[in-house]
Amino acid sequence: MTDPGSDEHRDGISRRRLLAVAGAAAGGLVVGGLAGGAVGVASASGDDGSSTGTVAFHGEHQAGIATAAQDRLLFASYDVVTPRRADLEKMLREWTAAAERLTAGQPVGDPATSAALPPTDTGEAEGLHPARLTLTVGFGPTLFELEGTDRFGLAAQRPDALVDLPAFPGDALEADRSGGDLCIQACGDDPQVLFHAVRNLTRIGRGVVRLRWSQEGFGRTSSTTASQATPRNLLGFKDGTDNLRAGTAELDDSVWATADDGSAWMAGGSYMVTRRIRNLIEVWDRTSLAEQERVIGRVRATGAPLGSSSERDPIDLAAKDAAGLPLIDPDAHVAVANQDALGIHILRRGYNFTDGLDPRVGQLDAGLFFIAYQRDPRAQFIPMQQRLAASDLLNEYIKHVGSAVFAVPPGLQPGQWWGQGLMES
Amino acid sequence: MTDPGSDEHRDGISRRRLLAVAGAAAGGLVVGGLAGGAVGVASASGDDGSSTGTVAFHGEHQAGIATAAQDRLLFASYDVVTPRRADLEKMLREWTAAAERLTAGQPVGDPATSAALPPTDTGEAEGLHPARLTLTVGFGPTLFELEGTDRFGLAAQRPDALVDLPAFPGDALEADRSGGDLCIQACGDDPQVLFHAVRNLTRIGRGVVRLRWSQEGFGRTSSTTASQATPRNLLGFKDGTDNLRAGTAELDDSVWATADDGSAWMAGGSYMVTRRIRNLIEVWDRTSLAEQERVIGRVRATGAPLGSSSERDPIDLAAKDAAGLPLIDPDAHVAVANQDALGIHILRRGYNFTDGLDPRVGQLDAGLFFIAYQRDPRAQFIPMQQRLAASDLLNEYIKHVGSAVFAVPPGLQPGQWWGQGLMES
Repeated sequence: MTDPGSDEHRDGISRRRLLAVAGAAAGGLVVGGLAGGAVGVASASGDDGSSTGTVAFHGEHQAGIATAAQDRLLFASYDVVTPRRADLEKMLREWTAAAERLTAGQPVGDPATSAALPPTDTGEAEGLHPARLTLTVGFGPTLFELEGTDRFGLAAQRPDALVDLPAFPGDALEADRSGGDLCIQACGDDPQVLFHAVRNLTRIGRGVVRLRWSQEGFGRTSSTTASQATPRNLLGFKDGTDNLRAGTAELDDSVWATADDGSAWMAGGSYMVTRRIRNLIEVWDRTSLAEQERVIGRVRATGAPLGSSSERDPIDLAAKDAAGLPLIDPDAHVAVANQDALGIHILRRGYNFTDGLDPRVGQLDAGLFFIAYQRDPRAQFIPMQQRLAASDLLNEYIKHVGSAVFAVPPGLQPGQWWGQGLMES
Repeated sequence: MTDPGSDEHRDGISRRRLLAVAGAAAGGLVVGGLAGGAVGVASASGDDGSSTGTVAFHGEHQAGIATAAQDRLLFASYDVVTPRRADLEKMLREWTAAAERLTAGQPVGDPATSAALPPTDTGEAEGLHPARLTLTVGFGPTLFELEGTDRFGLAAQRPDALVDLPAFPGDALEADRSGGDLCIQACGDDPQVLFHAVRNLTRIGRGVVRLRWSQEGFGRTSSTTASQATPRNLLGFKDGTDNLRAGTAELDDSVWATADDGSAWMAGGSYMVTRRIRNLIEVWDRTSLAEQERVIGRVRATGAPLGSSSERDPIDLAAKDAAGLPLIDPDAHVAVANQDALGIHILRRGYNFTDGLDPRVGQLDAGLFFIAYQRDPRAQFIPMQQRLAASDLLNEYIKHVGSAVFAVPPGLQPGQWWGQGLMES
């Protein structure tokens, strides 16, 4: 950087923010988040200024999991291209230092670098707010073992819960939208801030990792109703009504791995499953409202279960109409996905996406980038998806085209680095 | 829609907004815009609540041109697939009616449609603010004449200024990102609102038009400085410092076509050129700061011309350093693109984009979606781009991969429809 005034400006903001973060962290709060509120639901960004703040990087768990969902996602999956474990470790240390600065709204690296060198920060976030940026790292199965090879001496540390996902009926997975050795989930309220973060991490990782795939997503910026209103997916229906809520024992039990689960280095971590679920928009849009509501099992306008009047009414699969027929089809999406009925809970953090036109078929490439956090995919995502893939009426209107699973290590204390627990196990 | 309460809520908002719009329109103001302020520069969306409002649809000119730039873009280019002019006219009437409702934050169509039919509105914007949505229509050269055929009896109405752009040195245009018979430029502050608008227009146009290509873009949501701060492009530099400003005679003279220009139906309209300009991110990021600044001709941190101290200092191409060398390279981007030196002015309305990874080369597909409005491309964009293509130092770091030109008709009064002036000429 050549402008000390500008850096002072940035550092001034960051210092103020850091004081706020430090105070809140002591009290166990997340700055800019909705501690105790709904998870996976839009906060009133823009209306109350919270979208400009910071979320604490350090803590028991990584930020970006139980943090109230920000408005934007940029997800990046990487292949490790170096054969040397030392390179990987070095990059993870550098990534951690960069992530600490990025999430505080600061440029990466040393701004005093000579103008004869490439800038340490690429500059496009200069003058932008931190925008509640969170950066969450995960490790894929292939980091531990690739085609039978223990690439980095980590095979013994692979958690039992980090299984390769089985093939599900109807899967139409594309290799270039699936898998990965490492991932970064960047969430925040400004797409330029997210791009800046992923671009600079990718740049720091040059020679060590190579971007395998990426996915942008958006939530909802401007709900007219309460800040905790359930957002709508691109099928036009409210999505996430029954999601887990932050600050509940149910979330803690369902999301966080413990030392007793088998891998000590994963205690306080979680397992992430991502699925790129394309909506067959053109087919859906030609379907009657009555059929759409039968498929989902809810009233589109209100989100209420069919036969009920309000969104949060319980799903009553036994309810019948005057003719004695079930109000909710037993294969409706809400019936098949019903977490209470299954006794399975996952924390969803999905984002809508649109990637323009699919030139292969001339249709909109749009849908839901589904992200779920859980304690053990073998007991949560996998049985749930097996059930959905077998009988969900919605399957006629969606297609799973991307899939990945990652072990998401616990949060860090100052001085620790991403992957340290794994590498030092 | 099946929920009257929900509709009331929406209509209540819309009614309030409409009153505001009606009042402002009478006074010549644009609600949610920055009348008299900078054009092409982010407003303080989110900070002052303006990002939730509406922009008047009717007026002398179409909204979305001199309107202060919203934070997001979704651009859609269409091919007309019907051979019948009557189908095209009918769709343009329907598009206009839908655009009037969408820009007011209302769902399209009649919400009382039977549940036995597909919903008239796809629903995903239910409960969202209007988000300053503008929809701007344009007509491409191929609407008037395609491979020598006067498809719709419009060839005689083709404006002289609507030329096919010549090939420029260095062009690497892709057919599936270029051209189009019709376009919709959707701008607003919420990507879900933009997607909803383009999706519903595309749906209304089924059988008449087919989406040819689309492009998402983003501006800057959360500048820490004044609302009129110049945003940065993905090269990290401020972009748009010298852009035209709303409410100036320079803009009026440079942007709006008049009846004297040759096509009476275009009086009050403008001509739009779009260029998808990819940044060669990985090359740029390995270039020294000094070289980056030499290429652009400005200081990265401040945006000031090299040798000057503040962003809005004039570009002085005669200024020399102590050794007698020019402070600004004569082939620097600011030197070659300098509008004052050329005596040419265009109104730029560019958006940054990132479309993930280009699988063909394994590099980030990101850059600037350049949109320029002008009175006559033959006298403005074309000579300017010829000069840039010949000698701009920046050419080493960018690639033009998409290109299109459209005649953008004037604004409408209530009761008029998009294309009416053309069709009735």
